[in-house]
Amino acid sequence: MNIVVAPDSFKECLSSRDVALAISRGILDVMPTAKVFNLPVSDGGEGMLDAIVSSTGGDSIFVEVLDPLLRPIMAQYAIVQDGRTAIIEMAKASGLELLSEEEKNPLLTSTYGAGQLIKDGLDRGCTKIIIGIGGSATNDGGMGLARALGAKFLNDQGEELPDGGGSLEDLRQIDLSRFDKRILGCEVLVACDVTNPLTGPHGASMVYGGQKGANQTDLHRLDKNLAHYAVVIKQCLGVDVVDVPGSGAAGGTGAAIISFLNGSLVSGIELVLETVGMEKFIRKADLVITGEGRIDGQTLQGKTISGIAKMAKKHQVPVIVLTGKIEHPIDAIYKIGVTAVYAIANRPMTLKEGIGGAAVLLEECTNNIMRTIDCFRAV
Amino acid sequence: MNIVVAPDSFKECLSSRDVALAISRGILDVMPTAKVFNLPVSDGGEGMLDAIVSSTGGDSIFVEVLDPLLRPIMAQYAIVQDGRTAIIEMAKASGLELLSEEEKNPLLTSTYGAGQLIKDGLDRGCTKIIIGIGGSATNDGGMGLARALGAKFLNDQGEELPDGGGSLEDLRQIDLSRFDKRILGCEVLVACDVTNPLTGPHGASMVYGGQKGANQTDLHRLDKNLAHYAVVIKQCLGVDVVDVPGSGAAGGTGAAIISFLNGSLVSGIELVLETVGMEKFIRKADLVITGEGRIDGQTLQGKTISGIAKMAKKHQVPVIVLTGKIEHPIDAIYKIGVTAVYAIANRPMTLKEGIGGAAVLLEECTNNIMRTIDCFRAV
Repeated sequence: MNIVVAPDSFKECLSSRDVALAISRGILDVMPTAKVFNLPVSDGGEGMLDAIVSSTGGDSIFVEVLDPLLRPIMAQYAIVQDGRTAIIEMAKASGLELLSEEEKNPLLTSTYGAGQLIKDGLDRGCTKIIIGIGGSATNDGGMGLARALGAKFLNDQGEELPDGGGSLEDLRQIDLSRFDKRILGCEVLVACDVTNPLTGPHGASMVYGGQKGANQTDLHRLDKNLAHYAVVIKQCLGVDVVDVPGSGAAGGTGAAIISFLNGSLVSGIELVLETVGMEKFIRKADLVITGEGRIDGQTLQGKTISGIAKMAKKHQVPVIVLTGKIEHPIDAIYKIGVTAVYAIANRPMTLKEGIGGAAVLLEECTNNIMRTIDCFRAV
Repeated sequence: MNIVVAPDSFKECLSSRDVALAISRGILDVMPTAKVFNLPVSDGGEGMLDAIVSSTGGDSIFVEVLDPLLRPIMAQYAIVQDGRTAIIEMAKASGLELLSEEEKNPLLTSTYGAGQLIKDGLDRGCTKIIIGIGGSATNDGGMGLARALGAKFLNDQGEELPDGGGSLEDLRQIDLSRFDKRILGCEVLVACDVTNPLTGPHGASMVYGGQKGANQTDLHRLDKNLAHYAVVIKQCLGVDVVDVPGSGAAGGTGAAIISFLNGSLVSGIELVLETVGMEKFIRKADLVITGEGRIDGQTLQGKTISGIAKMAKKHQVPVIVLTGKIEHPIDAIYKIGVTAVYAIANRPMTLKEGIGGAAVLLEECTNNIMRTIDCFRAV
């Protein structure tokens, strides 16, 4: 029996790799001769890097870059086995996770480090750059990222602006004469499931600025700055980004990726599935087991399970979903190609017990499902 | 697909009939053409009557009898479809459930009402009497039960003793001249999984007397009285009951059933399975679904799931177990013939939420299991 194990992470509980390992143990205990393909995935948010590397077996690379407040740190990215594709998780260099609560300040924080990771990939010969942009600490419109690749952001004195979303109000000119042209020969894909425009009430600043440390006054200033930034981009680069869906992702980094890097924003899960080559595994599978921490209405909207189920349905492969929590109603999940959904709790328990025991519960639940399948396949 | 649904009750939550109904709904939603045989069972304890009647389709009969303190009440028993087999749950006439906390007193309480139910069965032509003896409020050695069938228990003045375990110390003679001889033409089977002898440290009084309201002084008196009772039974009936395993069941009622009724104590679950004709259903089944509130080490010791699994294993039919709570370790359960075990919780939850939602959770869990089976049967 060929079984593809392709779960997302269980948020605040287990990484997608650990989920996959627990499921695999549950399978192999019942069917020691099954061929199990461990392909942990991610919808493009946190954990994408680990998921892709553990699925594709690429190399992790650690580089010294500048964090959101321009302090040197070691940040990780990966080059997958083809040697030409870099997988970059923006949060590793420019993420909220790198700052204390008091340090959060989107007027100052920069995406410079993320740009450095891209540059390192170029230096190593990559021609395809895959970027996950969840969890950024920034609202600088991707200015830092483009700067790390050689763009110059100048004020009316012809001086370079300081980093951070707060200084964009002084932007008059963008100088691309020293811009790293190698990036324009690359395919740049961004895992992006948000559709926020750059500015306005649904824009980067107003929707996400608060959680990055901005107060009400800051929010309006940041929003105004990004609007001005878009005007200058239009003047200097000839690209109109302000209303492009997703241009507001990661504090406007979406806009920079579209305009400076000529990149594309694509569905996170589809990007991940393509990168790990999921379809060729699923095509030959007798069963796919996937899962995520919680199943709810959102599960149907471009998340991991939906992407996996769509692919499995195409090849008529059954899909079992394991989860920590089933939220009602889930009827629609059967329509997209999911065969059955199982929650892993083995008794009434607290959330804490569920999280603490999740690996064992996943293994045991899988074990019982495989016993059931094995029994009816044998009949 | 032929599916036998044969769960026990989920204690303090759902009757075995309600468990079976929820499971059936879960099956039929996925497989509307499946032939589902609803055969809720019981291990012979509380709920045996309901389980058998809902499985066999017999008649419930309500009779006025005397409760443990000799007050008139309406008590229920059943005659199954053959019209010859009475199913009597002793607790309905002589149970602890009929008394308030203050009324509990095994010096006084009587099994008379249970004997009246048997007599009513005889009056209606029954020739097979099946008795569940769990939950009794009594420690009278079954004196009341035998008295209701015509036995006379006399003191050294030739006067009848008052009811209750406290008066057995005055017993000198048992007069069977008016005893209802019809019972001796009957097959009398008692669902009994306890093996306590009549007296001593593991006997009826010392082990169960306390929960029936006896204090330490009472316990020793009751134990001594039952020892004396056994001597008189030996003298008058020629039957040695004192060390027979199970003679101490239901406050010594086991002893009376052996000696006065010539009855047999048999495994509760096996008796129930035979009464509902389980084997002929399982023999033709493609799947058996059973369950009980909690799966633990005890599950293997003569309880419902063990009995069902043994029978299914004999006919090589897969057995799925549904439960509220899986206690570790359960590995041994697979060895006795169980295919797989599923807990019904669909998320971390409190016991109260689990109990409140049990019917829906059972239905949904069954639904997903059937989707899985259906998918692999079809492949």
